Amino acid sequence: MDIDKLVKINILFDFYGELLTEKQKEVISLYYNEDYSLSEISENLNISRQAVYDNLKRSEKILISYEEKLKLVEKFEKKNKQIEEIYTGLVEIEKQIVSKQCSEYVPKIKNLKEICRELLK
Amino acid sequence: MDIDKLVKINILFDFYGELLTEKQKEVISLYYNEDYSLSEISENLNISRQAVYDNLKRSEKILISYEEKLKLVEKFEKKNKQIEEIYTGLVEIEKQIVSKQCSEYVPKIKNLKEICRELLK
Repeated sequence: MDIDKLVKINILFDFYGELLTEKQKEVISLYYNEDYSLSEISENLNISRQAVYDNLKRSEKILISYEEKLKLVEKFEKKNKQIEEIYTGLVEIEKQIVSKQCSEYVPKIKNLKEICRELLK
Repeated sequence: MDIDKLVKINILFDFYGELLTEKQKEVISLYYNEDYSLSEISENLNISRQAVYDNLKRSEKILISYEEKLKLVEKFEKKNKQIEEIYTGLVEIEKQIVSKQCSEYVPKIKNLKEICRELLK
């Protein structure tokens, strides 16, 4: 499977998954999170392979259309880039002050880095 | 109007507003952003005061139900608290190092604070 699509659908599912029906969630989760094939899902859920395929395509369309309207993943990813920037800045400062008179601030900086990591989870 | 509710609906509208119809967006925006009264909206849009009221209540319910499912505002606000924590930490470090040998790092820290402010916009 196209890895970019897999990542994209997984992220969209993470944001908007709760707007799908239980059946749609189940199928998309088996396919995209647990790497089941269409045939395996068909057997497991006792529905035709075509029904699995249609269900998947429908769910993908729904997820994509929510993102087109709300753009929350886009905003989230933009924010994450800025948090990474802060993290990188903190790493730089930490490296440079560790051998100087200000090394007492290293724990504080480590703490801020930890918050950045939390934010990026 | 209850200020907490005003803030809450405004935030929800900011996140999920694009999922409302054009008419719903118009009414909610006039009422919550531009502080029109029900009667003023009724006159402006040439619909009954009751229809304005029903439209508003319906939109509020929709916005609230999206948040109940997706909890994206909740996650966003949690992240903002952590960003504020980083900002506060940077302010502290800046204050303390400004008079020390490490004052050369003040511009870097100012830059990271600026990114925090961007994130909190």
